[in-house]
Amino acid sequence: MSNASYSLTVRVAISAQIGMFGRVMQAIGDAGGEVGGVDIVRSTRDSVIRDITVYAQDDAHGEEILANLRALVGVDVLSAADRVMLSHIGGKMTMQNRMPLETRDDLSMAYTPGVARVCMAINHDPERVWDLTIRANSVVVVSDGSSVVGEGDLGPLAALPAVEAKCMFLREMAGIDGFPLPVTVRDPDEITNAISKICSVFAGVHLTDIAAPRCFEVQRKLGAAVDVPVFHDNQEGTSAALLGALLNALEVVGKRLEDARVVVAGLGPSGVATVRILVAAGVGEVLACNREGAVHAGRTGLDPDLAWIGERTNPDRREGDAGGLIEDADAFIGLSAPAILSADDIRTMAPDPIVFAMAMPEPEIGQDEAEEVAAVYGTGRPDTPNQINSALAFPGIWRGALDCRATRINDAMVMAAARAIAATSAGALAPDHVVPSVFNAQLVPAVAAAVREAAEASGVARVPSESPSRAAAAS
Amino acid sequence: MSNASYSLTVRVAISAQIGMFGRVMQAIGDAGGEVGGVDIVRSTRDSVIRDITVYAQDDAHGEEILANLRALVGVDVLSAADRVMLSHIGGKMTMQNRMPLETRDDLSMAYTPGVARVCMAINHDPERVWDLTIRANSVVVVSDGSSVVGEGDLGPLAALPAVEAKCMFLREMAGIDGFPLPVTVRDPDEITNAISKICSVFAGVHLTDIAAPRCFEVQRKLGAAVDVPVFHDNQEGTSAALLGALLNALEVVGKRLEDARVVVAGLGPSGVATVRILVAAGVGEVLACNREGAVHAGRTGLDPDLAWIGERTNPDRREGDAGGLIEDADAFIGLSAPAILSADDIRTMAPDPIVFAMAMPEPEIGQDEAEEVAAVYGTGRPDTPNQINSALAFPGIWRGALDCRATRINDAMVMAAARAIAATSAGALAPDHVVPSVFNAQLVPAVAAAVREAAEASGVARVPSESPSRAAAAS
Repeated sequence: MSNASYSLTVRVAISAQIGMFGRVMQAIGDAGGEVGGVDIVRSTRDSVIRDITVYAQDDAHGEEILANLRALVGVDVLSAADRVMLSHIGGKMTMQNRMPLETRDDLSMAYTPGVARVCMAINHDPERVWDLTIRANSVVVVSDGSSVVGEGDLGPLAALPAVEAKCMFLREMAGIDGFPLPVTVRDPDEITNAISKICSVFAGVHLTDIAAPRCFEVQRKLGAAVDVPVFHDNQEGTSAALLGALLNALEVVGKRLEDARVVVAGLGPSGVATVRILVAAGVGEVLACNREGAVHAGRTGLDPDLAWIGERTNPDRREGDAGGLIEDADAFIGLSAPAILSADDIRTMAPDPIVFAMAMPEPEIGQDEAEEVAAVYGTGRPDTPNQINSALAFPGIWRGALDCRATRINDAMVMAAARAIAATSAGALAPDHVVPSVFNAQLVPAVAAAVREAAEASGVARVPSESPSRAAAAS
Repeated sequence: MSNASYSLTVRVAISAQIGMFGRVMQAIGDAGGEVGGVDIVRSTRDSVIRDITVYAQDDAHGEEILANLRALVGVDVLSAADRVMLSHIGGKMTMQNRMPLETRDDLSMAYTPGVARVCMAINHDPERVWDLTIRANSVVVVSDGSSVVGEGDLGPLAALPAVEAKCMFLREMAGIDGFPLPVTVRDPDEITNAISKICSVFAGVHLTDIAAPRCFEVQRKLGAAVDVPVFHDNQEGTSAALLGALLNALEVVGKRLEDARVVVAGLGPSGVATVRILVAAGVGEVLACNREGAVHAGRTGLDPDLAWIGERTNPDRREGDAGGLIEDADAFIGLSAPAILSADDIRTMAPDPIVFAMAMPEPEIGQDEAEEVAAVYGTGRPDTPNQINSALAFPGIWRGALDCRATRINDAMVMAAARAIAATSAGALAPDHVVPSVFNAQLVPAVAAAVREAAEASGVARVPSESPSRAAAAS
């Protein structure tokens, strides 16, 4: 499917003949490309130079479209630039000043000698770091690059564009200052050591794109070493979004959470966290499996996180893979690998099956195949309905956590976020609308308020929130 | 002296009688306060409520002024707020997005699925991190809080307002993204370990407010561990500014650098670095002393940095303190302690003495006393002429280093910066104008160009600079 994630800006000189422009449009369309926009760069007596934005599926498809254009007599392809690459030039974030520095007076207030008094104030009362510095609104976004946006282990440098994107969400959706910080070490103790030493300027640590099972250990060790929340968006973020989507999908098909049987396939960071939150939320029956088959208390060789799952799910010790376990299940949540399910597999599920096929970049079962058989279908992709993504959850969770200066982000806060996500789209529930858009203006304030309340109720809020959310103030 | 570094916003209700406002102004003036501005908040039949900005010297002086106001019949002081503290609320920096994130198309370009292609591109060619991420324009500003703006060891949290101020300079003067990062450890190996692990997103490390002699070890060890420059503004920044000021001051008094005898008092980070750069620049004779007296090759118990100085300066092994050493000296550079010199000490110097009294917050000799005897006088303070501050140097040095992606900042680059600083004010040289203002629009481009050229000539530039400085583009 063509979309902006692969798009070209093609500069063409089109000879000034009647019908030529139409032929250019047709050549793009014949190759399956979609025209996003057309601008005139300049025109002469003989030809018109235009920039055409063309949406394609991927690199190869882009080349096909260009080949079609180059084959046209009277058309000269002058250049073709990849819009996504262009848009990332120079990176996606910038540090800006919040007060002027243009006069001697500014200088003596922001810097010496005025700043000395501000430093002394914090030295006398360390709590003042929360109001006299950037700390209260700052979150560091950390990745070791071991599991990057569905592409696997790309390393910390290559993770940076994805890490920057997380920071963009924090700014755009929640008015939070996110600092992208890849780490060049992999050992959980080394990551903990490095990050804990530079953490005093941040109100939270946002882990992202770290592979399992190391990510669990990093979160535990770093969480114990710092006095701010350590949140992993592929765990708590994704699981909050999924639980929110599940709550609404069950509503759509008229089933209750307590009665539902849910199969989770894939036990990476998001799979493990999803099982954990489904159990905490009181789902009727949870079955989990990974590449080696179903997890249960009798399976040997489980690491501590899978052993935890074995003790709390699948009491009948059912064996098998995802295709087998989903028989009679009400919902399937895939966080595993592309194309592991068929429509026939879905047909074995209970009536009105819910299918969330989250594998990236290709889901466990494609939209075309699933739509015939599933009552509700969602993926992590932006080009299908029901895009279920951690970005639905983490900006609001952080906003709520920062607003009450939470010491951690616990299960109660994640569940509160899930319920708020579900409630935000509740007014317009439909099979193809079980989650709100990430652009829904009500989403972050609703999630933030619910998370803050849960933090206060569970005793992890450092300050009661009197003031309104900074998200509101920032917008 | 009153200035904006201590100023109050005082809200007063002034009864509506003829002459009352004048009496309010007089009461402030009588207490030595200076009125910066007056606004009307609202006015009723009986009184006018006004906000008055009052510059004071310090806390006690502010209280005196308020007491004078409170003593006035017909005047009600409603509130008094410290403007410097107010201006720091929420911190001084913010992370902002450089591209929109408002539509699904934005999302699929900045984030999944588009970002995966950008990550893959860096994975295939790590060099692309320089153009596809924030790295090329990002500098991390690191302090352990052991020597903060003349106030000593305040700790990393209390250093943060000063560290943020350094980031503000980088943004405002040089269009650089500076990231404030206090570290909670003191051991040079531990600092090196933490910072080297999180350094891959930065094009440079800016150390600030780290005490000697640890700062030298941190710079050496961290410099060896990372592939980007490790710069200490209290060393290279201050010494570049001082050398620039000295070049111009010698010009003003008609002396040559090669003939000059210069005494440096105080051998903390800036003192040691200043001696080093004066020696490198070919100053005729350099004498250095610290609290224990003059440094020379015969003095025992010197650490490696002072031993280096002993070997290269003071061949006659002169003994004594600053007051004694400055006899017949052409210039005195104090980076030591308040009020260690008198006018009589200065009178023992060679004709037309140059005195840079940089101790903060109070100089080695005050302006009133020095002006009678010194031909050129400068300090680090914004409220005297000739403010000599690392901020004259480091924004341009970083701009130049980033523009050519330098692997280090060497002596040649620091000297080039000093000469560019001197040249920027050369057109208007006068005893009270031997350095340009930090707000001089020519300063950063001039320093950047000189530093880039020196980097290329000395073989530490990773890429030749074809494109103009980003400082120019950012302004």
